[in-house]
Amino acid sequence: MPSTDLLLTFNAGSSTVKIGIFAIENAKVRRIGKGVIDFRSEPLAFSLTEDSQTFETPLKAEPTDDLHAVIDETFKLLSEHFDIDAVRAAGHRVVHGGDDFIEATALDIAAIEAIGALTPLAPLHQPQALRFIRALKHLRPHLAQTASFDTAFHATQTDLVRRFAIPRALHDEGIKRYGFHGLSYKFIAGEVSRRLSNKPKIVAAHLGSGASLCALEKGVSRDCSMGFSTLDGIPMATRPGWLDPGVILHLLQQKKQSADQVEDLLYHRSGLLGVSGINADTRDLLEDSRAEAQEALELFTLRIAGEIGRMSVTLGGLDAIVFTAGIGEHQPQIRAAVLQRLSWLGLAVDEKANAANGFTITTPASRITAHVIATDEEQIIAQEALSILRA
Amino acid sequence: MPSTDLLLTFNAGSSTVKIGIFAIENAKVRRIGKGVIDFRSEPLAFSLTEDSQTFETPLKAEPTDDLHAVIDETFKLLSEHFDIDAVRAAGHRVVHGGDDFIEATALDIAAIEAIGALTPLAPLHQPQALRFIRALKHLRPHLAQTASFDTAFHATQTDLVRRFAIPRALHDEGIKRYGFHGLSYKFIAGEVSRRLSNKPKIVAAHLGSGASLCALEKGVSRDCSMGFSTLDGIPMATRPGWLDPGVILHLLQQKKQSADQVEDLLYHRSGLLGVSGINADTRDLLEDSRAEAQEALELFTLRIAGEIGRMSVTLGGLDAIVFTAGIGEHQPQIRAAVLQRLSWLGLAVDEKANAANGFTITTPASRITAHVIATDEEQIIAQEALSILRA
Repeated sequence: MPSTDLLLTFNAGSSTVKIGIFAIENAKVRRIGKGVIDFRSEPLAFSLTEDSQTFETPLKAEPTDDLHAVIDETFKLLSEHFDIDAVRAAGHRVVHGGDDFIEATALDIAAIEAIGALTPLAPLHQPQALRFIRALKHLRPHLAQTASFDTAFHATQTDLVRRFAIPRALHDEGIKRYGFHGLSYKFIAGEVSRRLSNKPKIVAAHLGSGASLCALEKGVSRDCSMGFSTLDGIPMATRPGWLDPGVILHLLQQKKQSADQVEDLLYHRSGLLGVSGINADTRDLLEDSRAEAQEALELFTLRIAGEIGRMSVTLGGLDAIVFTAGIGEHQPQIRAAVLQRLSWLGLAVDEKANAANGFTITTPASRITAHVIATDEEQIIAQEALSILRA
Repeated sequence: MPSTDLLLTFNAGSSTVKIGIFAIENAKVRRIGKGVIDFRSEPLAFSLTEDSQTFETPLKAEPTDDLHAVIDETFKLLSEHFDIDAVRAAGHRVVHGGDDFIEATALDIAAIEAIGALTPLAPLHQPQALRFIRALKHLRPHLAQTASFDTAFHATQTDLVRRFAIPRALHDEGIKRYGFHGLSYKFIAGEVSRRLSNKPKIVAAHLGSGASLCALEKGVSRDCSMGFSTLDGIPMATRPGWLDPGVILHLLQQKKQSADQVEDLLYHRSGLLGVSGINADTRDLLEDSRAEAQEALELFTLRIAGEIGRMSVTLGGLDAIVFTAGIGEHQPQIRAAVLQRLSWLGLAVDEKANAANGFTITTPASRITAHVIATDEEQIIAQEALSILRA
């Protein structure tokens, strides 16, 4: 019996890379395992989950810039559990697709170059995925590779919504609102079309350490709180979200900070961490009775609720709210605090269902409903890779 | 018969200063004239209106930095129409009161110094008023002077609403959302308490070449779209409003612009002017059929409507919308376009009333109503000056 064809997915973040192992069955993908390389530990740590078992292994390889040794060793470890020769393609999450990539793409040399050329639009995020793509190209030149973009799902937004009120020339050269977390929202849109088909106007809240909201009209993106960069929108673990541009001028001109200092401030020292002065993790803040911790959480939920208000205007109405990602799926207190601020719209929390992370967490009488849906970005990457493979 | 006591108000903008002449009658102020010095023309132009007559005079004085000659000549021209010796006080509009000035103040030396010390918070606006205050102090040392602040009306906002998601230490040193256009909103709040007392939750839209929105709960400020600087919130004639902080990092790091270049871009080349590439004035854009002009207006009204959505969440509901200032009072098409985007909230425009700039511009069936109210910042400055004078 021939072995099942496999697909790998690579989701490279700033400190970890998540690897998905999928079986191709009846023209569909089914997850059969997952791995995580943690770049924060020394030596690098690799954990692999197959069925319900997780194996932890320190890597011998050093994290060189080209990652060749790390990936080589990772493949060897994967091959102890899976038939690596049956891998037909590797699909990568790429943060920025600019205006060129409005859907997933096969990664030939030209596409890799084009993705590299978008690095100025996402200088902190784009290089991560590129290192993995180039390393795989080097180590396994005949393996098909594909890229799935965080921006692509938002290509349906109008030019108006994507616009900042800055000179046209800057917009035309690409300084516009692209939107992010598109793989997550594509997954949610699929779920919504099956399970909430009578709710055409939905705001989805992807709340993780990075966080954003997306306005969905019949599953199509109409607005996103993250705009040009991953800084905008709602407060995040260490990023500020919405910030008066005058604050940055003040930091530069009055406080004589450099652009690099401001960048560090905005990416790594703001958000929940900055406001609380304690911690970037909502789980810890929820357990902390200090006023600063509670204030950070209140600001988080106030801004999420406010942004749902703004997005309802983009949609011209609101039928449902969907919570997803780490915080959205698992933290009832955060969801309740957001929904409490929206009760005037005709929405009441079902406390029992909310505490249980149920699918519907509003009372039957609520005109607007709220839901919890687990997202799966790797599932979308694998599906898109398979589509390209079969095309 | 003794002559009536008078009050002068000074409202110094970047290119003009408006002077109000008020009579003090029965412990109230009544406007009896107004003057404008236009610093854009050469020689400087002074126009004075008394009753319905307007007199235009070029000034002989050069606009030196201390303004002594300009103010001296202006007082001479005023004295041809009004009894300048009966002037009991001069009240000034000052943009920034920081945390110290949460109400109007008498201008002794210490207060003038304290206002000067706030200049880093409003480097482009604060110096204007200070020049007039100091010149009057020099030329008429015994004339009582008072300051009314654009920020003071917003002191009722919660600390939470005023907070950005940045490190606490920056908030504590004053990088927070102060809110502006407070004299206008104080005037509107007064009108609202008389005329819309059954509407506790109101968003007021001050739409001029500078533009902002204010969330009023029973006449008290709860939120403002302009935050730390006058750049934030909704797009304006030449300022962008809401802008992803990542855009500024991109301009600095990728496009190698200086902070001063970015400042110029954001204060003078963005907003309606930047998006249209044509004009900063909504009146001209409304007459212009080019797609770029229409796009600028659409972005303007989309963002205003979106911000009303956000502010409704701060208020926990919405009962009425009030339009004021040049655009708000006189441009029915702009108001209609904003309200159109909010019709899902239960609000329909009365087209005839709107075209006539009527007080109520929604249909009787509208659950949420919309109104036009003419604002008068100088009336508030004069009232506050009189209160201090009588205290």
